[in-house]
Amino acid sequence: MDYAHQQLKREKVFRDPVHNYVYVKYQVILDLINTSEFQRLRRVHQLGTTSLIFHGAEHSRFSHSVGVYEIARRIIESFQKNFMSKEPGDGLWDDSEKLVTLCAALLHDVGHGAYSHTFEHIFGTNHEQITQAIITSPTTEINQVLRRVSPDFPEKVASVINKTYPNKQVVEMISSQLDADRMDYLLRDAYNTGVKYGTFDLSRILEVMRPYKDGICFEMSGMHAVEDYIVSRFQMYQQVYFHPVSRSMEVVLNRLLQRAKVIFSSEVNHDPQTPYLLLPFFKGDFNLDDYLQLDDGVLNTYFIHWKRYPDDILSNLASRFIDRKPLKSVKFDKSTSNLLPRLRQIIEQSGFNPDYYTATDNSFDLPYDAYQADKKQIHLMQDDGTLVSLSSVSPLVRAISDRQTGDNRFFFPREILKPDENVDLFQPEYDEFNRHIRNDQLIQ
Amino acid sequence: MDYAHQQLKREKVFRDPVHNYVYVKYQVILDLINTSEFQRLRRVHQLGTTSLIFHGAEHSRFSHSVGVYEIARRIIESFQKNFMSKEPGDGLWDDSEKLVTLCAALLHDVGHGAYSHTFEHIFGTNHEQITQAIITSPTTEINQVLRRVSPDFPEKVASVINKTYPNKQVVEMISSQLDADRMDYLLRDAYNTGVKYGTFDLSRILEVMRPYKDGICFEMSGMHAVEDYIVSRFQMYQQVYFHPVSRSMEVVLNRLLQRAKVIFSSEVNHDPQTPYLLLPFFKGDFNLDDYLQLDDGVLNTYFIHWKRYPDDILSNLASRFIDRKPLKSVKFDKSTSNLLPRLRQIIEQSGFNPDYYTATDNSFDLPYDAYQADKKQIHLMQDDGTLVSLSSVSPLVRAISDRQTGDNRFFFPREILKPDENVDLFQPEYDEFNRHIRNDQLIQ
Amino acid sequence: MDYAHQQLKREKVFRDPVHNYVYVKYQVILDLINTSEFQRLRRVHQLGTTSLIFHGAEHSRFSHSVGVYEIARRIIESFQKNFMSKEPGDGLWDDSEKLVTLCAALLHDVGHGAYSHTFEHIFGTNHEQITQAIITSPTTEINQVLRRVSPDFPEKVASVINKTYPNKQVVEMISSQLDADRMDYLLRDAYNTGVKYGTFDLSRILEVMRPYKDGICFEMSGMHAVEDYIVSRFQMYQQVYFHPVSRSMEVVLNRLLQRAKVIFSSEVNHDPQTPYLLLPFFKGDFNLDDYLQLDDGVLNTYFIHWKRYPDDILSNLASRFIDRKPLKSVKFDKSTSNLLPRLRQIIEQSGFNPDYYTATDNSFDLPYDAYQADKKQIHLMQDDGTLVSLSSVSPLVRAISDRQTGDNRFFFPREILKPDENVDLFQPEYDEFNRHIRNDQLIQ
Amino acid sequence: MDYAHQQLKREKVFRDPVHNYVYVKYQVILDLINTSEFQRLRRVHQLGTTSLIFHGAEHSRFSHSVGVYEIARRIIESFQKNFMSKEPGDGLWDDSEKLVTLCAALLHDVGHGAYSHTFEHIFGTNHEQITQAIITSPTTEINQVLRRVSPDFPEKVASVINKTYPNKQVVEMISSQLDADRMDYLLRDAYNTGVKYGTFDLSRILEVMRPYKDGICFEMSGMHAVEDYIVSRFQMYQQVYFHPVSRSMEVVLNRLLQRAKVIFSSEVNHDPQTPYLLLPFFKGDFNLDDYLQLDDGVLNTYFIHWKRYPDDILSNLASRFIDRKPLKSVKFDKSTSNLLPRLRQIIEQSGFNPDYYTATDNSFDLPYDAYQADKKQIHLMQDDGTLVSLSSVSPLVRAISDRQTGDNRFFFPREILKPDENVDLFQPEYDEFNRHIRNDQLIQ
Repeated sequence: MDYAHQQLKREKVFRDPVHNYVYVKYQVILDLINTSEFQRLRRVHQLGTTSLIFHGAEHSRFSHSVGVYEIARRIIESFQKNFMSKEPGDGLWDDSEKLVTLCAALLHDVGHGAYSHTFEHIFGTNHEQITQAIITSPTTEINQVLRRVSPDFPEKVASVINKTYPNKQVVEMISSQLDADRMDYLLRDAYNTGVKYGTFDLSRILEVMRPYKDGICFEMSGMHAVEDYIVSRFQMYQQVYFHPVSRSMEVVLNRLLQRAKVIFSSEVNHDPQTPYLLLPFFKGDFNLDDYLQLDDGVLNTYFIHWKRYPDDILSNLASRFIDRKPLKSVKFDKSTSNLLPRLRQIIEQSGFNPDYYTATDNSFDLPYDAYQADKKQIHLMQDDGTLVSLSSVSPLVRAISDRQTGDNRFFFPREILKPDENVDLFQPEYDEFNRHIRNDQLIQ
Repeated sequence: MDYAHQQLKREKVFRDPVHNYVYVKYQVILDLINTSEFQRLRRVHQLGTTSLIFHGAEHSRFSHSVGVYEIARRIIESFQKNFMSKEPGDGLWDDSEKLVTLCAALLHDVGHGAYSHTFEHIFGTNHEQITQAIITSPTTEINQVLRRVSPDFPEKVASVINKTYPNKQVVEMISSQLDADRMDYLLRDAYNTGVKYGTFDLSRILEVMRPYKDGICFEMSGMHAVEDYIVSRFQMYQQVYFHPVSRSMEVVLNRLLQRAKVIFSSEVNHDPQTPYLLLPFFKGDFNLDDYLQLDDGVLNTYFIHWKRYPDDILSNLASRFIDRKPLKSVKFDKSTSNLLPRLRQIIEQSGFNPDYYTATDNSFDLPYDAYQADKKQIHLMQDDGTLVSLSSVSPLVRAISDRQTGDNRFFFPREILKPDENVDLFQPEYDEFNRHIRNDQLIQ
Repeated sequence: MDYAHQQLKREKVFRDPVHNYVYVKYQVILDLINTSEFQRLRRVHQLGTTSLIFHGAEHSRFSHSVGVYEIARRIIESFQKNFMSKEPGDGLWDDSEKLVTLCAALLHDVGHGAYSHTFEHIFGTNHEQITQAIITSPTTEINQVLRRVSPDFPEKVASVINKTYPNKQVVEMISSQLDADRMDYLLRDAYNTGVKYGTFDLSRILEVMRPYKDGICFEMSGMHAVEDYIVSRFQMYQQVYFHPVSRSMEVVLNRLLQRAKVIFSSEVNHDPQTPYLLLPFFKGDFNLDDYLQLDDGVLNTYFIHWKRYPDDILSNLASRFIDRKPLKSVKFDKSTSNLLPRLRQIIEQSGFNPDYYTATDNSFDLPYDAYQADKKQIHLMQDDGTLVSLSSVSPLVRAISDRQTGDNRFFFPREILKPDENVDLFQPEYDEFNRHIRNDQLIQ
Repeated sequence: MDYAHQQLKREKVFRDPVHNYVYVKYQVILDLINTSEFQRLRRVHQLGTTSLIFHGAEHSRFSHSVGVYEIARRIIESFQKNFMSKEPGDGLWDDSEKLVTLCAALLHDVGHGAYSHTFEHIFGTNHEQITQAIITSPTTEINQVLRRVSPDFPEKVASVINKTYPNKQVVEMISSQLDADRMDYLLRDAYNTGVKYGTFDLSRILEVMRPYKDGICFEMSGMHAVEDYIVSRFQMYQQVYFHPVSRSMEVVLNRLLQRAKVIFSSEVNHDPQTPYLLLPFFKGDFNLDDYLQLDDGVLNTYFIHWKRYPDDILSNLASRFIDRKPLKSVKFDKSTSNLLPRLRQIIEQSGFNPDYYTATDNSFDLPYDAYQADKKQIHLMQDDGTLVSLSSVSPLVRAISDRQTGDNRFFFPREILKPDENVDLFQPEYDEFNRHIRNDQLIQ
């Protein structure tokens, strides 16, 4: 039998805490999982610094990726049962799309690296481009597996992920406002953090999800299940993804890598503290193979070394990150942003370089999205086959989509609030700083 | 107020997926959690290589340690409600033991390092001794926190963990056949692997647990809950802890570190692949501070480097470990162990050095224990105050305690079963090897 | 010891699927549970006709009542730990209110009867008045237990339930927008129906709930948990409580009792089909004791008898109810209500008496309430002690509170849509009827 | 399309708390569910008096029956995917058996009545025979539905249930040591009581279950899942089904019906307290239609009436049952059974008729079975296709199967332990009685 259709003699099952089991029947899928590029995902946390706040959130991109694969598999299983295409153009499910969909689901995040958000910001990498490269570069094991299916198969899988694939059903199963990716990460992040808000009724959603000619929609009878998913997503952002302490640790990481870049772009000391695997990035001259050497553990190993590096800012920031000493933060808005220069001045007076020890951050800059008005809406199909948009029938969803403003925060060293022998600050300045903070907000 | 009794203004809660919340009220506990030695536990997986088989099992020693603390806290809360001592010697709970118990619960595993079982085997370290050292050495942050309580407090905490503390109730809460440690790891490992077997009724056990003059026992009415805990523990060993593929990955790790020791004990090349932080261990001359630099990520970082090291065995074993290529294994027993020399010979003929590519292993050598007859039994208290042992009233528990034999396995390269161009083996030897394997066992 | 403070030697625990255990320590509480009036609640379903749609929802008022008691107990336990009053008027928890609170929580629904909503509508009873009567009438066992505490204790308990008790903390714990009653029924109804929407984070809410001088509020840090509770409540109404088929079965029950009232108010045949225990209600002359004889099983027993009663409408409606044959329904609104007279006419032509076989119903007439603007709002306490209302900080809650309109439905016999030999209707009328129904709505 | 293959246009789903959803695709199945005989199961509790101890256990035979159907449906779905027969006699799944299997699964308990165990004991009915009668009698709605499939279809369905159907795979799916029936009731009873012991890994068991030529077996890799099911079953018997207070309430019910039989076999007063629907049973002359009028509510309605019946024993026992006043019990064995006559004598002296107020009972007489050595064993299939019995590879299962003795209890009025004004007993007799009871056992 040709490789594309080659099935395992006995279906392989992976125990999964969220989906109970992940079922693998295709040899191609098993071979992809066994590549070194995919195994690397075991060494990259799904939620980066969030596990420093929700200690249970220690799961990896690997777990999430097989979870997305499994949800896609179940969607297709449901489509096969209820919505198989009988003739081209009838808007139903064409089962010859199965393998490309499963591969894209499995591989959609394979380009993610250590602490992606901050890393990309500092080094100008882009995990989506790298995902494309891993799939299409002839040097990778993943590409070699995919090419065994057919020479153009890597490109097809890559095009599903970058949304240029012609079959919109396949694309929307992986990337849309309600897709396998989002469903898995919400459930998995909720499971591992232990918050209750992220759970929704996956099996009901699978039951009411259906193909139609322009993509994927949901039967009207499933409106409440879909609504509940949107609400859960909103709550996860508010509670977990936008958590101020997690953002604070991202700020520390950002400043730490910024400082390291200053130092290691020039110096090349061959001592134990040199971050060999990061040098290509500091120098701005890296290739795919360099990228694939990196993971959370590699970065942390350098940070551990840097705790003893003879640069005060680098070593201090490395300690703050590795030993989890977040900056403190408060909310501010237009009416109080005028205070920030003075607060930075006080911080500088107390001995902290404000370039490295302060920051502002808006939760809307984070790589998570609420249900957005400017994207393709979720649609519901009525009994007579006509479509209505979710927000037109759900006041809850309308309330969420309309939320426009983010949460602005100003970050600064915790020491400034409680000066001790280490902080060199006069009482009047200390009092001034404290006077502007009340109920977690800046006030005049 | 003195430091020992200093309480946080507002109880601090940590979201925990297993216990829902972990509650911290003592400043001492919060300060201990914030030490660098304790934060290091975030970077050490609780289950080592097991996450390579149960992909959800990516939780850390940190999560487990706060979980043990939380269970101990709940036990004490229950004792306070129902079993407070009224006079010395009445065999009830003396609440002045609370803080030492909580500290010991939190810190009982603080000496664990990366891949402890194998690491200790290769380098002769011992995580229990290191736990004692971390608590009692004046150089650690943990010792400094504990000393603020009182000068002899570190020693007291350490003595609870090494079971020499005079109050047996305190000791058995942390270390006995049914203690806070085991209860947390069973629940947490079950939660994260996703297997159903490890769950038992924690709240019922807390309800029926009680102090008595010689330690801790359980009310007769809770017999079934305790029995269920023992059965769950048994099932977790069978299903998770003794999993043959997990043991196979331990074998690979063992061989990898063994090879690295041969290489790096002598050479000191100052190149990127030198494992600086491991050198003290290869040289057999390390101190506590050296140990505290290590974690899973540090070891993995070296393994990633070694994939390109110019020693075939080292680089091949590093790839097998990092890219998850387990050895294959089969069960054997006394009647078939005579076959092993010949099988090793065939493996050698096929080009694998049997010192590095074969192994035998008995599950009973693993650092997990079934309910054992030679340890202090679990006791149940009847209505009239008399005690009976659990195994005298539960045939299930008796069945488990009596199981004496382990599961012997022989490990070898998977390639030997399906020779391809990479394996240099004649067909007759290949056939001979395969003939001896049936239903996962060696046969004559 | 006096009866009010008499504690059981060993705390009694009841296994509860929602709260795991219900803990009883007071003799008074155990004695109340053991009264015949309270045991009667075992024979009254919590959700009436809803179990005909969600078959798992077979739980009783008994289970709910002990659940409300348990939540109240846990709230008080939390108040005792964190918010004990030190001096009168400090707005904190006065623990001498404990017993009256627990009794009120346990007994708040003791006046509920079989199929309360419809029963009250037909017979003019009122379960809230009956609850008061059961507690305060010297003839009941419950009154006798309460009087042993003190002569005015029954009146105190009753006044908590009817909200005239002076301590607003006690009143709001039992009856407010976020009280022990609502929290238990949402969790329990969700658990038993199996829908996922009703779950929220009870332990978090208990953690952030606190007394203040005018009642009960929540700490700001718990905003999301409270918001999630409101959303869950909204979703339960939409999905479960307002389910159209459940309302349809209520319509059938209503018509059935209406017909029975016509028949049995006059006739008194002493035959097996006479509803002896209902006669006082048909005659409008009943006492508390008559009421306490009734339960779901008694009513159903009469319905079973009536399936053979020689009145076509009574026997047909009894069969429809007992054998679960709901009416069909469609939504209508102001723009389509003009069609109803003609539809009723067609139904009459087809042989159904429209007084008994049609109905209109608005979900807002049901005895459930969304989060309402005209009631005392839920308040959140900020760090500095000031209060803000929940809807001022949560757009989700605002979206829910603003929903003003209900869901109007017109009910009619299912046979009218698919005429068969039993329905005597000409094709043009049948076509006309069907033409007005599309996507579950009336259309012109 | 013929009725046997007629599918619903849109699959119908029932929300189920245990299986999440129950899926119905065949018109036949929906029609069966809508019969009056099947709807009657909503009014019969699954666990009878057990809900008086575990208050959550209020679920009905209806819920259980659709649950068994759903598990059978999932087993077949798995068989269709992996084990479809290719030629007669290959020992794999013959899909033409699907409908008969689903119908048998749905209907296997349709003959159960109110408080079956005790009812059958008193009136000589047999729910298994009645199940057969309901299916095969031309008068029932169920028979009419089944006959539409084919004239011999009712007999085929009935023969599956009474185990004479030739295809053993079909029979064992419904009735064997590990069948759809047992799996549903364990999970459902555990869910509703709230005990943790009854849960096992259903999806894993479905995964490893397979047909073979002599019935159904399990793949070796599922050994632990099957073992866990057996252990869970054992624990549910010990904890729930054999609960002494539940058995005590069965004793009260037994004595109550016994007394009623004495009274109503002769008298025929046409007053409100006459149990019209039970008269055919008291007279020993009933037909299927009489039986189908009965349910829990009907019996309870009579008991409520009887609380006021002018026979002291009948009214007292009715009150004890309706108001939940269990008898007390103690364990005894061969060495103490000689005490029973004297204890009965003391009870008689205190004014209780020992025929109605005492009883002995052995848990092994209850209609539940542990894993039994004399039934067809559970078999596991090894890699090479050979079978081994479960107990040969699992010491846990061996331990359970070997347990031979039951738990003997002696039941007596609680008043005898704490004589008050209502009990006419001299102190020496009272002391004598109490002296024989210790740690829940009779002693000499």
